[in-house]
Amino acid sequence: MAGVEQRQNKSGGGKYFFCSGGKKKEVKKETGLGLSFTKDENFGEWYSEVVVNGEMIEYYDISGCYILRPWAISIWEIMQTFFDAEIKKMKVKNCYFPLFVSPGVLQKEKDHIEGFAPEVAWVTKSGESELEVPIAIRPTSETVMYPYYSKWIRGHRDLPLKLNQWCNVVRWEFSNPTPFIRSREFLWQEGHTAFATKEEADTEVLQILELYRCIYEEFLAIPVTKGRKSELETFAGGLYTTSVEAFIPNTGRGIQGATSHCLGQNFAKMFEINFENEKGEKGMVWQNSWAYSTRTIGVMVMVHGDDKGLVLPPKVAALQLIVIPVPYKDADTQGIFDACVATVATLSDAGIRAEADLRDNYSPGWKYSNWEMKGVPLRIEIGPRDLANNQVRAVRRDNGAKTDISRVFLVEQVKGMLDKIQQNLFDVAKQKRDACVEVLKTWEEFVTALGQKKLILAPWCDEEDVEKDVKARTKGDMGAAKSLCTPFEQPELPEGTKCFASGKPAKKWTYWGRSY
Amino acid sequence: MAGVEQRQNKSGGGKYFFCSGGKKKEVKKETGLGLSFTKDENFGEWYSEVVVNGEMIEYYDISGCYILRPWAISIWEIMQTFFDAEIKKMKVKNCYFPLFVSPGVLQKEKDHIEGFAPEVAWVTKSGESELEVPIAIRPTSETVMYPYYSKWIRGHRDLPLKLNQWCNVVRWEFSNPTPFIRSREFLWQEGHTAFATKEEADTEVLQILELYRCIYEEFLAIPVTKGRKSELETFAGGLYTTSVEAFIPNTGRGIQGATSHCLGQNFAKMFEINFENEKGEKGMVWQNSWAYSTRTIGVMVMVHGDDKGLVLPPKVAALQLIVIPVPYKDADTQGIFDACVATVATLSDAGIRAEADLRDNYSPGWKYSNWEMKGVPLRIEIGPRDLANNQVRAVRRDNGAKTDISRVFLVEQVKGMLDKIQQNLFDVAKQKRDACVEVLKTWEEFVTALGQKKLILAPWCDEEDVEKDVKARTKGDMGAAKSLCTPFEQPELPEGTKCFASGKPAKKWTYWGRSY
Repeated sequence: MAGVEQRQNKSGGGKYFFCSGGKKKEVKKETGLGLSFTKDENFGEWYSEVVVNGEMIEYYDISGCYILRPWAISIWEIMQTFFDAEIKKMKVKNCYFPLFVSPGVLQKEKDHIEGFAPEVAWVTKSGESELEVPIAIRPTSETVMYPYYSKWIRGHRDLPLKLNQWCNVVRWEFSNPTPFIRSREFLWQEGHTAFATKEEADTEVLQILELYRCIYEEFLAIPVTKGRKSELETFAGGLYTTSVEAFIPNTGRGIQGATSHCLGQNFAKMFEINFENEKGEKGMVWQNSWAYSTRTIGVMVMVHGDDKGLVLPPKVAALQLIVIPVPYKDADTQGIFDACVATVATLSDAGIRAEADLRDNYSPGWKYSNWEMKGVPLRIEIGPRDLANNQVRAVRRDNGAKTDISRVFLVEQVKGMLDKIQQNLFDVAKQKRDACVEVLKTWEEFVTALGQKKLILAPWCDEEDVEKDVKARTKGDMGAAKSLCTPFEQPELPEGTKCFASGKPAKKWTYWGRSY
Repeated sequence: MAGVEQRQNKSGGGKYFFCSGGKKKEVKKETGLGLSFTKDENFGEWYSEVVVNGEMIEYYDISGCYILRPWAISIWEIMQTFFDAEIKKMKVKNCYFPLFVSPGVLQKEKDHIEGFAPEVAWVTKSGESELEVPIAIRPTSETVMYPYYSKWIRGHRDLPLKLNQWCNVVRWEFSNPTPFIRSREFLWQEGHTAFATKEEADTEVLQILELYRCIYEEFLAIPVTKGRKSELETFAGGLYTTSVEAFIPNTGRGIQGATSHCLGQNFAKMFEINFENEKGEKGMVWQNSWAYSTRTIGVMVMVHGDDKGLVLPPKVAALQLIVIPVPYKDADTQGIFDACVATVATLSDAGIRAEADLRDNYSPGWKYSNWEMKGVPLRIEIGPRDLANNQVRAVRRDNGAKTDISRVFLVEQVKGMLDKIQQNLFDVAKQKRDACVEVLKTWEEFVTALGQKKLILAPWCDEEDVEKDVKARTKGDMGAAKSLCTPFEQPELPEGTKCFASGKPAKKWTYWGRSY
């Protein structure tokens, strides 16, 4: 991912490009249309460029911090609206806990703080004064919240307690900051729930994981695998971690999409979160925590983007359709403009997020490229011939396919096309992902597949030391391989199958690979 | 406001109270129903207690930071939904800028940083490492954002640029932390816009101010005054500041409700935010910034709360109506419970936020007090007699009025009552506020009125030194008086009227008083 952090220093000079008609045109000088890198050849640089030129991100003067521009935030808000409504149906309530944690509380759960300590940012001064005690900025809020769970939960009637917050968290990482994917501050939701029984906690872990799958597969059109993390990859201080795992074919890296943890009773013990059950017996609560972050947006860019720019799935696109007038000399320009405005009105009334680009200082070709860069799923062109025939021309961003649509059937046709784009993005992404999966059984095959950037599914003995050993043996410039998840959907594991790495009896099929 | 910061250390012992029937009942031991302080006698302590017992706030182990519980966040979310939709209609777009600011940028606008420097929290360490350069946490985002405005704005077609973000900010204040009203971290929205002309900026300042009025008057049922701040009270680095000002009769203090600033071209100059107009001439942009925060919720508690607890205006209440079964011995308990559930279903279908409290381990009387403490606007009781008569009994939180309602007209009657409660809360608050207004013309009257906790309207020469002088002359335990705002609605100012403080010719009527 070298170069991802690199600033955009595009020259201000004029650029040439081919518009859809195939004619060479000069575009406005100040714009940097077109990408300098290709996705296949320079993935890191391509990503870094596309998030900036697509106007999702602006690099910031503090390394690892990024400005999320409206084009990114609008996607975040659409996912937020969905997820927030779903968890409210599950009786989860939103709250807001402070950004700051005192050191004593932060350090209460030993394993947990070991996991986060190196990344914690500390406030030590206010104005010109030193603080008496340094104060930490939350990297996550378990230790912020749970002292109060202990206070609020007394009896079984106080359970379940289900809270969520939408907030920023800070993890001062030093390795490879990458917009959306790995940043020092990011936005997320974090849910924190407490139950009387392990069964209830187990059930919720999977309900939430299903919502995360839904965000990836149904909103972002990205195939993910549901599974359980290995011991080594389990959330610090938790009992077990489930996740949805995505894969980036270009880099051959897995990426953890979102996690739903069962914390068991570890935190309950440390923070004394006890309750009295119906029979007057004392018990400890069972807890979960779960989160997804703005990382989702980065995965979407990596999976769907192409050499023309972003490609947004219609369900999360702030703008699903852009209407562009294509006036020729001597054409009825006003008539064309009116048709554009009318088209937007018709589509907006039908609930489609549509706008017209009526700017008079850009050519149609420039506008095509501009909105392709921004990834708008569907473009509608209206020229003199379209006007004469009472039709519009629709051009899909995902595959470039062009269709003439009668204005009589505009709404239903556009709706149908948006659905098809959404489905096609998913299908293509799944096909590419699946093509990278390599099922194998030996260490030799494993090393070869890793070199070929494969997503490896291999039988494993499920021993922590063996995973550590795999990491040690695959260390290198590209980063070590590790287990990604043990998928819930397990292929058959024939009696006598050996672990690919240790040769011991295998217990399960597990995905392995390099990861973000 | 002494005592506001004090923790709740309520004894766990049983408490007695009178339920609506006037009979003495013992309530559950672990609950701290009822308030220890009255609003009129110990306002500070009352406030501190009511936000905790009403389950809006939990005190946190870092002074000046508070936990916003779901009961508070639900109010915030209702206001947010309204405001966010309104600004989107104005073509404002949401974005998210980093929490952190580098010192160089923070200090670029001299007046601005002078205003905020003493309150800035600094991150100096991550993990065990010292940062090379300390990094500030945003107290507000002018200096975070404007370097990028300079980058994004080139020509007149890039204008207006209208961005907003919903986020947390940190101001490490040391004086009197008070939940919602003055806290070291708080939630807000901050809008930052840039225009080609001062006229456009001026217009937007007032459009936003009108939305703030709407939040206070129409959602929170709190009368506010729109006006302009004095030179001394203008936003650090800004050109002029408008605000909506509320008033707390119990303490005789004004409170700035929300501010809409015209920044003029000061920041544009410092951050070089220039553009080329239609004629190819270079110009500087005109900027605004505007914000309202979780302070709104505190003002609502202070204005409407009473000795029974919170009083929530229906428009912002997460729960507008609570249905409580009142089963007597030998009554048809199941029938009553069924009627409660059916009542909630009918009301929910009609868009009213209603729930039933069917807990079997609390008495009806306990429940009445519990939901009164939480401020739910309307209570519906259903007992055997109600069941027999196909009616319910409605009890208003604002004035205790009881009405029997036929279940046939349930929805329309309840809607009507909620509207009346909303209006009555505003009317009563306005009446109380207006009763505190004292129009006066001399220093002697001013001093007397200040001692009587009045909201003072006085003719003023509008000179900065005179305001400084008023502050110096009124300094004391209670805090100095200052100008609150010059209301846009000006009474007639007869020729020859003198300034109440300087004796010079008065230029305007201005509100004065102590403030939060």
